[in-house]
Amino acid sequence: MKKIVTIGGGTGSFTILSGLKKIPNVSITAVVSMADDGGSTGVLRDELGVLPPGDVRQCLVALSEHTDVVRKLMSYRFEEGGLSGHSFGNILLAALEKVTGDFAKGVEVASDILKVKGTVVPVTDDKARLLITLENQTTLEGENAINHADIQTNTVVKIHYNTNVALNERAKHAIENADIVILGPGNYYCSVLPNLAVNGMAEVLKKTKAKIIFPVNLTNKKGHTLYWTAQGYVKDIEKYLQRPLDIILANSLPPSKEQLEAYELQEGDGVLVVDDLPTNTKVIRRPLLSQNLVAFQKTDVIASVRSFIRHDSDLFAESIKSLL
Amino acid sequence: MKKIVTIGGGTGSFTILSGLKKIPNVSITAVVSMADDGGSTGVLRDELGVLPPGDVRQCLVALSEHTDVVRKLMSYRFEEGGLSGHSFGNILLAALEKVTGDFAKGVEVASDILKVKGTVVPVTDDKARLLITLENQTTLEGENAINHADIQTNTVVKIHYNTNVALNERAKHAIENADIVILGPGNYYCSVLPNLAVNGMAEVLKKTKAKIIFPVNLTNKKGHTLYWTAQGYVKDIEKYLQRPLDIILANSLPPSKEQLEAYELQEGDGVLVVDDLPTNTKVIRRPLLSQNLVAFQKTDVIASVRSFIRHDSDLFAESIKSLL
Repeated sequence: MKKIVTIGGGTGSFTILSGLKKIPNVSITAVVSMADDGGSTGVLRDELGVLPPGDVRQCLVALSEHTDVVRKLMSYRFEEGGLSGHSFGNILLAALEKVTGDFAKGVEVASDILKVKGTVVPVTDDKARLLITLENQTTLEGENAINHADIQTNTVVKIHYNTNVALNERAKHAIENADIVILGPGNYYCSVLPNLAVNGMAEVLKKTKAKIIFPVNLTNKKGHTLYWTAQGYVKDIEKYLQRPLDIILANSLPPSKEQLEAYELQEGDGVLVVDDLPTNTKVIRRPLLSQNLVAFQKTDVIASVRSFIRHDSDLFAESIKSLL
Repeated sequence: MKKIVTIGGGTGSFTILSGLKKIPNVSITAVVSMADDGGSTGVLRDELGVLPPGDVRQCLVALSEHTDVVRKLMSYRFEEGGLSGHSFGNILLAALEKVTGDFAKGVEVASDILKVKGTVVPVTDDKARLLITLENQTTLEGENAINHADIQTNTVVKIHYNTNVALNERAKHAIENADIVILGPGNYYCSVLPNLAVNGMAEVLKKTKAKIIFPVNLTNKKGHTLYWTAQGYVKDIEKYLQRPLDIILANSLPPSKEQLEAYELQEGDGVLVVDDLPTNTKVIRRPLLSQNLVAFQKTDVIASVRSFIRHDSDLFAESIKSLL
């Protein structure tokens, strides 16, 4: 049985895991960033002292083989009273951390309840705040603050944490024994790199015999990476990896005028990643783009509908299947 | 397969269902009062407009065949922040009512998630407040208010609701087809009678060929029934039933001095039900008392530990088994 490991955050991982789980006879491990500190997740972190549940929740939903109602329940967000703003799945994971005394153990119980195909593993068991240090010597603290900050005017020196953050042993074991490791897709500074900044991650990615695949971002993010090129992403991520990527997965289907206009209206010019892929790395170019025009949802019922331009779960899974 | 229906509320039903589920080859339906409006349940009713989940939650936990961790999760009560005071199970049922648009449907989904042996059915799908009308012409509104009121100084004229409350069709069907119907045990005015006050309940209990069993209360409640006798309960409940009981189930094991003292300290004199059972109804007298001395728990982890003098789940189930 081929072993696939995804390394990412909430929305991007949700999208690809939803497709990957349909591939027969593969074992999937989703390694998930633990840097989130905004929204419902942020409130639960602050008030209950639990680890951030939001990204893990989305991966559990993607891999759940329970009924549609149960998957919908996990993403249900309360709209009134003292529970307002909390997603039910976040509350489940917070309660399980309290009951079992351990976030990772709670995720295992949740996986059992939700009939998850595969394994969801937090990248670390340690509590920490994400930091980003810029060339002008300032350091921003907290994933949510970084997500909303305009950091593009400065060069990013380092993505790191405010305390020692060690790689979860199960994540390490899964990466060591994987056939394929997929880095991303997702918010580059807030979902992808926070995993690579965990102590021990770069080492295990250097050691593993797995093919390391980077689905290059479809879009740039306002304040973070506007006007970036595909080659820019590749160079930047290889700096954190301290090794070359094995395969770059690139989309060959341009977005529709409608998709692009909707996206530019929201993010500004320079949102499309310039397609200048390097020739010294294997590039697989396939149609990977979702052709649905889906708007941002206030209630965030399904995580993957946050973006106008995003990967198509099934096309993405097909491209990975062809590499097995 | 013999069919058992229990009609009750939270704690009493939790205790007997925990034992009844161990009887092989029986089908169990727990019909549950929907009158609760205190604590976490009351807040969710008020803020989210949902039906009261507390009693149903306890019955689901009792009948769940999921792992101990999952059963513990359902009763976990948050202690900090905006979720403080809420039990996780109540939040689950509230979210499921929102997601499915229907409380009873939500209970079915919860039963599936929790691997419930048997069926838990809310006595009604209608939202209403419990009323108690006294001989002095006053009417108290709300289960929580009634529970804490001193109503014993007045004769109770009627237990009813502030609006029309119809018997749930699935509850009706279960009672019609049952072999045994157990009324209670539980808080007499707040858990047992609220079921009998639902429109259609007395009619179906008159029609059913099931044996109707009344486990006469072990203790009286301060402000409600202090100094009551077994015969008092039987006479009173038959007034609501408009038919005679078939079997009265009475405990033959007196509580220990320690149990009684602990209970009297809390409830005052007259807590033990005077044992003067009538001779015109079949009485089965067996040891039914739990011999554990369990204190009230602040966090209410397991519902059944609320009372110093209570039924023993296994002894109770044995007595029902002998009637099948």
